[in-house]
Amino acid sequence: MLECAGMTPSFTSGALAAQLGAELVGNPDLTISRLEVIERAGPDTLTFIRDRLNAKHWLASKAPCALITRRVELPEFDRTQRALLRVDDADLTLNTVIDLFAPPASRPAPGRHPTADVDPTATIGAGVYIGPACVVGPGAKIGDGTVLKAQVYIGENASLGRMCVMHPGVRVLDRCVAGDGCIFHAGVVIGADGFGYRPSPDGRGVVKIPHIGNVDIGPGVEIGANTCIDRAKFGSTLIGAGTKIDNLCQVGHGCRIGRACLIAAGLGMAGSCVIGDGVMMGGQVGIADGVTIGPGATIGAQSGVIGNVPPGEAWLGTPAMLANYTLRDWANARRVGAGKPSINAGREARQAKRERPA
Amino acid sequence: MLECAGMTPSFTSGALAAQLGAELVGNPDLTISRLEVIERAGPDTLTFIRDRLNAKHWLASKAPCALITRRVELPEFDRTQRALLRVDDADLTLNTVIDLFAPPASRPAPGRHPTADVDPTATIGAGVYIGPACVVGPGAKIGDGTVLKAQVYIGENASLGRMCVMHPGVRVLDRCVAGDGCIFHAGVVIGADGFGYRPSPDGRGVVKIPHIGNVDIGPGVEIGANTCIDRAKFGSTLIGAGTKIDNLCQVGHGCRIGRACLIAAGLGMAGSCVIGDGVMMGGQVGIADGVTIGPGATIGAQSGVIGNVPPGEAWLGTPAMLANYTLRDWANARRVGAGKPSINAGREARQAKRERPA
Amino acid sequence: MLECAGMTPSFTSGALAAQLGAELVGNPDLTISRLEVIERAGPDTLTFIRDRLNAKHWLASKAPCALITRRVELPEFDRTQRALLRVDDADLTLNTVIDLFAPPASRPAPGRHPTADVDPTATIGAGVYIGPACVVGPGAKIGDGTVLKAQVYIGENASLGRMCVMHPGVRVLDRCVAGDGCIFHAGVVIGADGFGYRPSPDGRGVVKIPHIGNVDIGPGVEIGANTCIDRAKFGSTLIGAGTKIDNLCQVGHGCRIGRACLIAAGLGMAGSCVIGDGVMMGGQVGIADGVTIGPGATIGAQSGVIGNVPPGEAWLGTPAMLANYTLRDWANARRVGAGKPSINAGREARQAKRERPA
Repeated sequence: MLECAGMTPSFTSGALAAQLGAELVGNPDLTISRLEVIERAGPDTLTFIRDRLNAKHWLASKAPCALITRRVELPEFDRTQRALLRVDDADLTLNTVIDLFAPPASRPAPGRHPTADVDPTATIGAGVYIGPACVVGPGAKIGDGTVLKAQVYIGENASLGRMCVMHPGVRVLDRCVAGDGCIFHAGVVIGADGFGYRPSPDGRGVVKIPHIGNVDIGPGVEIGANTCIDRAKFGSTLIGAGTKIDNLCQVGHGCRIGRACLIAAGLGMAGSCVIGDGVMMGGQVGIADGVTIGPGATIGAQSGVIGNVPPGEAWLGTPAMLANYTLRDWANARRVGAGKPSINAGREARQAKRERPA
Repeated sequence: MLECAGMTPSFTSGALAAQLGAELVGNPDLTISRLEVIERAGPDTLTFIRDRLNAKHWLASKAPCALITRRVELPEFDRTQRALLRVDDADLTLNTVIDLFAPPASRPAPGRHPTADVDPTATIGAGVYIGPACVVGPGAKIGDGTVLKAQVYIGENASLGRMCVMHPGVRVLDRCVAGDGCIFHAGVVIGADGFGYRPSPDGRGVVKIPHIGNVDIGPGVEIGANTCIDRAKFGSTLIGAGTKIDNLCQVGHGCRIGRACLIAAGLGMAGSCVIGDGVMMGGQVGIADGVTIGPGATIGAQSGVIGNVPPGEAWLGTPAMLANYTLRDWANARRVGAGKPSINAGREARQAKRERPA
Repeated sequence: MLECAGMTPSFTSGALAAQLGAELVGNPDLTISRLEVIERAGPDTLTFIRDRLNAKHWLASKAPCALITRRVELPEFDRTQRALLRVDDADLTLNTVIDLFAPPASRPAPGRHPTADVDPTATIGAGVYIGPACVVGPGAKIGDGTVLKAQVYIGENASLGRMCVMHPGVRVLDRCVAGDGCIFHAGVVIGADGFGYRPSPDGRGVVKIPHIGNVDIGPGVEIGANTCIDRAKFGSTLIGAGTKIDNLCQVGHGCRIGRACLIAAGLGMAGSCVIGDGVMMGGQVGIADGVTIGPGATIGAQSGVIGNVPPGEAWLGTPAMLANYTLRDWANARRVGAGKPSINAGREARQAKRERPA
């Protein structure tokens, strides 16, 4: 039976096993009230075992209970004092376990903090919370149930959908738009001017190009802390529904990012890129301006993409190319450095003869 | 005749052609009220055609009017319903067209929001706007006509010139200085302490070095969202007049950046670098501490610069060197990986014989 | 004798020599009141000479007085008008000189600005300063003597130790913890949700994994401007005592960083990494998720670390390996490009024969 007293949830090991569809080995009556990595586990802790080394550490730890990946051999343990929950993949199951231990989502009660500055021409939906030191500009629209935590800035004629969460210090600048259910983390900047200049008429320095466009973000988008999405010179920078962008990313003016993309931290995307649906990018990727990346493509971490990537392909490296080629070049550099012939040395020698016959 | 009614500008195709010095082919009486890329164009849209593919897309689009680069062959179209404006370079002309469509710059009326906190010892110029939740410290100076949008922080004895725009959440910390006409985008941090430590006397860990210098920024500098410019240990970190720095860049303590530089997003510049006038850097460049880059040099995206760069040269790669060398090395890696001899294979073989005679 | 009048400290050259244990050559009665690089020195300036070129520049400068590294040959100069202070290492001594010239640390007087919003259930220590537009949430704890400069956000049940300094715009989100003497620079975000999703049950897109953990930061930690440390999915993201992290860094959910690490700007660290004590990282390093880096290891700038690094080793490159290997591979690429045989060319040729006998 699942029990949950007060703020902290609490379960028996047997109840957890039932809930997760796990095979229980050991004591079903252990009380579990938190999740932790093995090294920091206590006597009320559920932890997880993904390999034989973890299993060893578990035996030495205080955690009475652990998820264990089915293919890991069961260690010997005192089945009266401890319990293992066997599942196909302890890591994956963990992600659903977190839901069980998550405190009830605390949405602040609707209202408006006295230190918030909301323009009288703004349209504020039902059940909206606007926290301390927030600023909502003229003509802005805030959808029903949306939360502006604190120190948030919503610019002139900007618009947020329903049930969004804007964390402290988010700035959604003039005329930018976000759909329902978006989550923007602290310090996000939506709609700063793009980096666009033209040579000044006197040939000395440059002149700023006005940025009269905006940023248009679909529903269900989550944007990480201190990430910046620049507004388009004209038209819109677009972020498709359900796309997730990590912390400290830069998306240049006029980019069009598709739906359900996953983009890890540290991205540097120049202007006017077109990214298809379902694209995944590792951390610290750089994309040159105007590049097109096809739907379903994958870009490895730290890659520098300077050409178009076909749909579904995995690219890697600087300059990025098919990951297999980059991995081969990396291996070759290693081999040559270690005094071994390159992978294609035989072919290479024959080619050399052909290309330079005498 | 140019017409502009209310907030949204509106032009005839003929008037636009005259204004831009373009050759008009087709109907001069179309009404144009916005700019967009072809894919998102509507019946009132001016768009642009830079190649034959664009021309095809234009024919299928709703946009009645397009700029077209002169060398692109004119497509067949209904000249009673549509119009093309021929110019030397549609992309470049677009940047000036934006000026025509830009809404009149909206500077807030001078004044001070009741939630702003302005120290009585600060000197506030004529026509200054200080928005909600802004903080201006003791002894700070704000020049005539400068705008602090909202949630801006200007530290003790910091100083801004005339006609600057500080977007929401900008922080200019104690004693830092910026000249006339600077634009700092949301979340910029000017004058955080540099990353400077010395070994602690007990040999365990490090001790913070005080940073008693400041940041001194020339007139006409634009700094991108969430970019950080650290203060010098002593003296000043310098940014020259007219330099433009993109989003999410890091400039270390004591750097001296010249005039009219263009630096793309994601820079990581360590301390005490000296960057000449007119230097251009691509995205995600890294510069080691103390490096000197000569005036007019160009650094390719994602480069890692660990040595001095002579004036006017183009460098690329990690470690960065003359771009031609890096491009050659990249090509070589590709060739060797594909089983082809390296570009200099013949020369290489002769050298190998010479260096290892027996 | 050391003298210090008003805000600006002022010393004689003789007093400085005595204070620093330097050998004075020249006039001991010069008045020195500021520190500067040679190029920007004035008639009251102490500067520094680290090589012969600096010595030349000094002679042409206005600075009457300079620290000089002992091994640099003394230039000829007018010993009645100027003075040199000979020390073992002018650069190192400079760091201690800064202490002499540092203005007295100005801690704001304890108190609470009328525009600050402090929840009545928060626990505020003695001597705490809470500046304008700050927000302190329910159940938060602020230790004695801690300063929240302005526009700082301290979330629900978050906790700061004693004598911390939170610069403008810092956000320490719900339940996160920092020890005594921490310094967080402007725009730091502690405790945003990590980048964690699982495939949605309908196979279209992803579902957010709740992040019920926190960030737990030891005493004496300094974190640079706009850096982000994500909260753990469960348990804690850990930062050990005395660790210093530069600007614009990203630390993923569930990382455990040891004590006294030094991490330069632009880091991208994925989730669940384990970093030992005393690790040093250059700028723009990337670390793949789950990587372990042993105590005392060093990671070169722009490296991409995808495997575990043993204690004490120096690694470099993408993919990172022992720095010596990477440097050798870089040198080889250069040699091959220039038509020279690779460093191990002889060995390579013999290996090639052995591997492909016919």
